[in-house]
Amino acid sequence: MLKESDLQLRFCTNETQATREKFVAKLQRLGFELSVSEVFSPAPAVVASLRQRQLRPHLLVHDDVLPEFSSVDKTNPNCVVIGDAADKFSYQNLNDAFRVLIGLEKPVLFSMGRGRYYKETDGLKLDVGVYMKALEYACDVEAEVIGKPAPMFFQSVLTDMGIQPHEALMIGDDLVNDVGGAQHAGMKGLQVRTGKYRPSDERHPTVTADGYVDNLAAAVDAILKHRA
Amino acid sequence: MLKESDLQLRFCTNETQATREKFVAKLQRLGFELSVSEVFSPAPAVVASLRQRQLRPHLLVHDDVLPEFSSVDKTNPNCVVIGDAADKFSYQNLNDAFRVLIGLEKPVLFSMGRGRYYKETDGLKLDVGVYMKALEYACDVEAEVIGKPAPMFFQSVLTDMGIQPHEALMIGDDLVNDVGGAQHAGMKGLQVRTGKYRPSDERHPTVTADGYVDNLAAAVDAILKHRA
Repeated sequence: MLKESDLQLRFCTNETQATREKFVAKLQRLGFELSVSEVFSPAPAVVASLRQRQLRPHLLVHDDVLPEFSSVDKTNPNCVVIGDAADKFSYQNLNDAFRVLIGLEKPVLFSMGRGRYYKETDGLKLDVGVYMKALEYACDVEAEVIGKPAPMFFQSVLTDMGIQPHEALMIGDDLVNDVGGAQHAGMKGLQVRTGKYRPSDERHPTVTADGYVDNLAAAVDAILKHRA
Repeated sequence: MLKESDLQLRFCTNETQATREKFVAKLQRLGFELSVSEVFSPAPAVVASLRQRQLRPHLLVHDDVLPEFSSVDKTNPNCVVIGDAADKFSYQNLNDAFRVLIGLEKPVLFSMGRGRYYKETDGLKLDVGVYMKALEYACDVEAEVIGKPAPMFFQSVLTDMGIQPHEALMIGDDLVNDVGGAQHAGMKGLQVRTGKYRPSDERHPTVTADGYVDNLAAAVDAILKHRA
């Protein structure tokens, strides 16, 4: 329905275990209509930053997201990029990334997200933020977070849409990363009461959603009704 | 020479990749005269804390230090203990420790030291502090550091010697962990200009040694001369 309106739509994800192509294919199988150009994920945003600043990364990322970095010069690295590498976060691999970073005159660390953990069918899994903190402490640096909740990430999406923050509405299940991040970028943020949502989110000490909806369909109804 | 005087001597180490027995054997091969009862390392201090507080640990430690924990009940763990596990710091093992910790009503994390990295013949290696920070962030807890520079660790050594802090002198190559830690416990701290010593230590922003000696032999000479 939303696709049939004149509203512009973008999908913002912190997914770093797949390319946008695979991510889109997965959502299409679930019945969503979307194209790769509508998807914003950390990897392409990092690639844009690397280009702009002429940086060559040492990558500690999931194998399935490597194709996003295929065009990037990775010789003689002068920065480190980490994503949700999961099982690739071995001692050896983290130590390799650390040695690159500590060897730089001015260490630059990009982290694709700052999540603590997420849930999979077999239980909780440590997320990239945990390894970001590890490298930050090891090298006494502060990582540049690319992805939600970084305001720059939301701004890049607004720029792509050619609109101002107050003209945009973010809908997400993650209070801090989706709603809080969007609000910091000047947008309004709705939280859906599905997925990562917890009742305690509604009394969070620092982030208050501009509204709640029981699910994504209800959000779409509300938006279209509001415009009618 | 020091052994022949009436001065009491203790060796304080953050070594968690070996039992005290192996540590002593190594130093004896290097020509030091010392016995296991003179060595204070984090593992036995953790074991004492676990006993006192009736805690059962999930261990993420180096295989070679496991014998120190042989007498400890490790069933149905209600805390996590990490040491310098090196290659055992796999994603899977860190995730297992994380799941134990996040599943506890009141998560308790012991870290045997808070070092960032150390040097081995094949290069720099990430130390336990890095993984401590990772788990602290993942579970939003603060670790209890056992070992240098924790004042409690130095106090336990003073208690063993039956002396007051002002009667003791710490000599070490690590400004923050050896000298600063001892000073926080009320002792004086000398830095030796060997090992981890860096000239920049002598203008450190927060820790100032009570004195410097070029090496351990010079420290011993100075102490004995001072008493003569």
